[in-house]
Amino acid sequence: MGTKFSTRVWVSVVGIASIFLGSKGYADTVISVADFGLKPDTRENAVAYVQKAIEACRGKEPVTLVFPEGRYDFWPQYAHEKNYYETNTYDVFPKRLAMLFEGLHNITVDGNGSQFVMHDRIQPITVENCDGVTLKNFSIDWDIPLTAQARVTKVGSDFFEIEINVLESPYIIEDGKLVFVGEGWKSALGSMIEFESDTHFVVPGTGDLVLGRNWRDYTAVSPRYGIVRLSRKGGFERYPAEGNWLVLRHSTRDHAGIFICGSHDVRLSDVQVYHTAGLGILAQYSSDIAFKKVSVEPNAAKGRILSGHDDGFHLMGCKGKITVDSCRWAGLMDDPINVHGTCVRVVKVLSSDKVVCRFMHDMSKGMEWGFPGDKVGMIENNTMRTVATANIRSFKAIDEYEFELELTSDLPEEIGVGAALENLTWTPDVDIRNSFFGSCRARGLLVSTPGKVVIENNVFESSGSAILIAGDANYWYESGAVKDVLIKGNDFRYPCMSSMYQFCEAIISIEPEIPQPDTKYPFHSNIRIENNTFNPFDYPILYAKSVDGISFTGNVIQRNTTYKPFHKRKAAVTLVKCRRAKIKDNKIIGDVLGAPGGKLSIVKE
Amino acid sequence: MGTKFSTRVWVSVVGIASIFLGSKGYADTVISVADFGLKPDTRENAVAYVQKAIEACRGKEPVTLVFPEGRYDFWPQYAHEKNYYETNTYDVFPKRLAMLFEGLHNITVDGNGSQFVMHDRIQPITVENCDGVTLKNFSIDWDIPLTAQARVTKVGSDFFEIEINVLESPYIIEDGKLVFVGEGWKSALGSMIEFESDTHFVVPGTGDLVLGRNWRDYTAVSPRYGIVRLSRKGGFERYPAEGNWLVLRHSTRDHAGIFICGSHDVRLSDVQVYHTAGLGILAQYSSDIAFKKVSVEPNAAKGRILSGHDDGFHLMGCKGKITVDSCRWAGLMDDPINVHGTCVRVVKVLSSDKVVCRFMHDMSKGMEWGFPGDKVGMIENNTMRTVATANIRSFKAIDEYEFELELTSDLPEEIGVGAALENLTWTPDVDIRNSFFGSCRARGLLVSTPGKVVIENNVFESSGSAILIAGDANYWYESGAVKDVLIKGNDFRYPCMSSMYQFCEAIISIEPEIPQPDTKYPFHSNIRIENNTFNPFDYPILYAKSVDGISFTGNVIQRNTTYKPFHKRKAAVTLVKCRRAKIKDNKIIGDVLGAPGGKLSIVKE
Repeated sequence: MGTKFSTRVWVSVVGIASIFLGSKGYADTVISVADFGLKPDTRENAVAYVQKAIEACRGKEPVTLVFPEGRYDFWPQYAHEKNYYETNTYDVFPKRLAMLFEGLHNITVDGNGSQFVMHDRIQPITVENCDGVTLKNFSIDWDIPLTAQARVTKVGSDFFEIEINVLESPYIIEDGKLVFVGEGWKSALGSMIEFESDTHFVVPGTGDLVLGRNWRDYTAVSPRYGIVRLSRKGGFERYPAEGNWLVLRHSTRDHAGIFICGSHDVRLSDVQVYHTAGLGILAQYSSDIAFKKVSVEPNAAKGRILSGHDDGFHLMGCKGKITVDSCRWAGLMDDPINVHGTCVRVVKVLSSDKVVCRFMHDMSKGMEWGFPGDKVGMIENNTMRTVATANIRSFKAIDEYEFELELTSDLPEEIGVGAALENLTWTPDVDIRNSFFGSCRARGLLVSTPGKVVIENNVFESSGSAILIAGDANYWYESGAVKDVLIKGNDFRYPCMSSMYQFCEAIISIEPEIPQPDTKYPFHSNIRIENNTFNPFDYPILYAKSVDGISFTGNVIQRNTTYKPFHKRKAAVTLVKCRRAKIKDNKIIGDVLGAPGGKLSIVKE
Repeated sequence: MGTKFSTRVWVSVVGIASIFLGSKGYADTVISVADFGLKPDTRENAVAYVQKAIEACRGKEPVTLVFPEGRYDFWPQYAHEKNYYETNTYDVFPKRLAMLFEGLHNITVDGNGSQFVMHDRIQPITVENCDGVTLKNFSIDWDIPLTAQARVTKVGSDFFEIEINVLESPYIIEDGKLVFVGEGWKSALGSMIEFESDTHFVVPGTGDLVLGRNWRDYTAVSPRYGIVRLSRKGGFERYPAEGNWLVLRHSTRDHAGIFICGSHDVRLSDVQVYHTAGLGILAQYSSDIAFKKVSVEPNAAKGRILSGHDDGFHLMGCKGKITVDSCRWAGLMDDPINVHGTCVRVVKVLSSDKVVCRFMHDMSKGMEWGFPGDKVGMIENNTMRTVATANIRSFKAIDEYEFELELTSDLPEEIGVGAALENLTWTPDVDIRNSFFGSCRARGLLVSTPGKVVIENNVFESSGSAILIAGDANYWYESGAVKDVLIKGNDFRYPCMSSMYQFCEAIISIEPEIPQPDTKYPFHSNIRIENNTFNPFDYPILYAKSVDGISFTGNVIQRNTTYKPFHKRKAAVTLVKCRRAKIKDNKIIGDVLGAPGGKLSIVKE
């Protein structure tokens, strides 16, 4: 196995590479993939060529690896394979790595506007144990994506018909079910999301219930290839509308689009991620990551409604500063941004300073959760109160679910089996601005970090809550409490909060999962929502639970009437077990549902 | 790289395998690919699973490797790679091997009717240094073949339009040319063959000249995806007919479908090779090969007109007995059967018994041409007379084109630089019967071996000559002279000899390439053509050059009028520099063009 480059070719490469030194306006050493025989637009598998080019960069830092503009195809053949435990991703092993940057320092990858076209289930870019990495000027897409889409062409009394572009989503009907068959895989339709034909917004009031709750006993037939009729005895509970688009979800989330781990100072700019086999851009246990003009959107040139398989940017256990500027997301099958840590549960107390902890979610296990010296918060899991902090003396994995943790001080009395631990060292400051949160399944922005958070000058057209500040140590085990959040100058447009998803209590939903919330010990603190504009078609604008210091001031609110109100909450603001709330100086324009008589309705629970 | 099977899985495999022992009516140890986790119909890459299963067969011979019935997909990922010099194939390295059987003895591979579906450029089955191999009950095909086909939908004054099934032959228009893009490759239209819409015969009088000789300056446009219009300033010299099928040839021949080398006693039965990346089934330096109910035909279930990329069965440098029984070929882009050796040219005389020889054709280099003790014929290349024989003392490759050969006796006077050598040890007896030679590009059966050849009870619907006995040491360098050929009881139907290809002088064309043929030294000998039926629409039935002992007796000839006669030869029989010809006792029914007055016309040159 492995490609065979002759010594002669290798030597000539070094010769050619040196010609590029400084000749293209780069300050660095410049190595081109072309030097290794890779030409754009050949449709040939680029993997082995790019591996050679990356290896040639080693030791020549600062170095720029350039791709002459064009299309490059990547297939699993020759791909490096490693077993990464990627958070919020299923541990399907091995992970296939189209391009692996490992242990490199001061490297720039410049695609010059190239298209990286992937095939089969694969992780396009992996950055492991690097520092000083710039990725820029390229797009990532699949010819045959790992999610399908279809247009609704006919709706009958107990059936509806859809049209599928079979060039990009070939399918078979197997045992009466719609099953997609791709490059090295086969997977059955699992769920669907309905997008409006004109706006490409998720249809209001649908969420994951396009056909209602009971539809999996459907029968599919294909009267001609490309047309599929789905019917159900007695009909479906709900039908999508003729002309609308369905994203037909299938397959699992098993690879990120760009995976960054153990890396520091990573900058992405002018990168379009049109599709992925899982999360879009995932960073974990990394620091100082900057996104500038990075998008995870449908590829309009291909008529795509679907974009990534799951979240857009997912940052777990990161530290330093995360900056997101002028980025865009749309057509995702999960949240555009999710910044959080991972809580673990104490399952055994071995001694006064030693515990066994367990990763509580299938998709967040196997990771190296903490390092000696890291600061740990100890959370009593009924009130979600951080009882004490300590530092890690040692971390030792037992298996992929459990690890032994030795601390620098004794556990307080309240912390025992069932308590949660949170790593407070790997928590970042977050700055998100000038970005466009288009219509995606689920929420817009999830943020859970005690660091300084600024969310400024963004536009939200989210289907669920635009912003969700959750934090739980009981279900997803995504930590943690926020301490300093500024939400300022954003534009929350009418599609926000038009479908229900988990934790969506209002356009801005602060909804930590606390079994027994106690006003004495608020979970979150210091959240300022100011000078934003809201165009709600429904009542709930803000829901806040267990916050010490929540302000909602200087906002302009004007009703939009495009959609019909549906939410169970009939107040603009709901405050649950909050302290020091300040809701004032907001401007109400005209008839706002949650502001009868021009005054925001506030419910306290 | 490489898949990761855990120890646990491996152990259970051995456990399960033993359950199968004797339980399925097999006398051998039985190992199923299912024991290694491979399930049919999953579309997953089968390569790594099958490698494990094959390795598990080693040491357990006699062994049967079974595939539970279903579809299995093979991708280049994980495929073994080796640099085989395959004859009549371009030396594109490495060769990718979907299934490699190497150094195994007494192994049966039973597909139970499974479909092996290939992806990208790949060699489905390789049998190297094995003996006692049975391959049975499976088909080989590609979803996206390495040749395309199209239906002619419109013919205008300077253009014609074709319809392409873009699911199986995706294409792009690049710089005004039609370029196919597949799984890991891109290749431009290179040539075309026209097949009749109803019979699927190559259109008479077309051959490789569907558009005439000058068409490569065509312009392609695609008014909608799937429809391509080809036009040319001033028009084409010839146009295909509306409704007819075109096979659009592109890409190179770089892998056989089944490659057999250095192996002995290989039996294939109930195998359908629907497509290949080059020759269909290629055997070289192997002995005793039996084909029973093996076909290389278009996959009718997929609406295919095209079958293999090149020849059907290609046997070069084989010995022992080759038997072909109840086999079928159609829609090939080259000859259904070609049995021959490879001549080499003496390029330097090093001493009285030592020469440097050179492989003279790009597609027949790099091979281990002979082994110590092999008998070599020495051919004076103007008269093609075998002047003497000797045995090989040693063979030493110099490079892929040249080798040094030491013989057991001195070269005769006539043999010097320019002479040709032929390996007479690696020449088989050939028995071909009960088979159907459907319409393919080029000829039906090519045979060049001094062994005993029987061609009996076959049906020929060939486009060019049904049978070609060539032999040359000047162009293709495919040896050698025949000594004992019986052509008996075959049915040569009207499509035979309806298009011109190289060496096609009659339905049966015996056309060695001899620069200066000399009746004193006939090249071929002892060819009997008896009790066959011919339905010629044209004059030439038999052309024989340089044969000592050629008989044409007891044949029944009845004219067919479906096609118009076109051949330059206006006699039924042409004899050139032949000795001892016997043309008699043939039955002429009605008005046969080559038999005015009921008597076969014979021209001697």
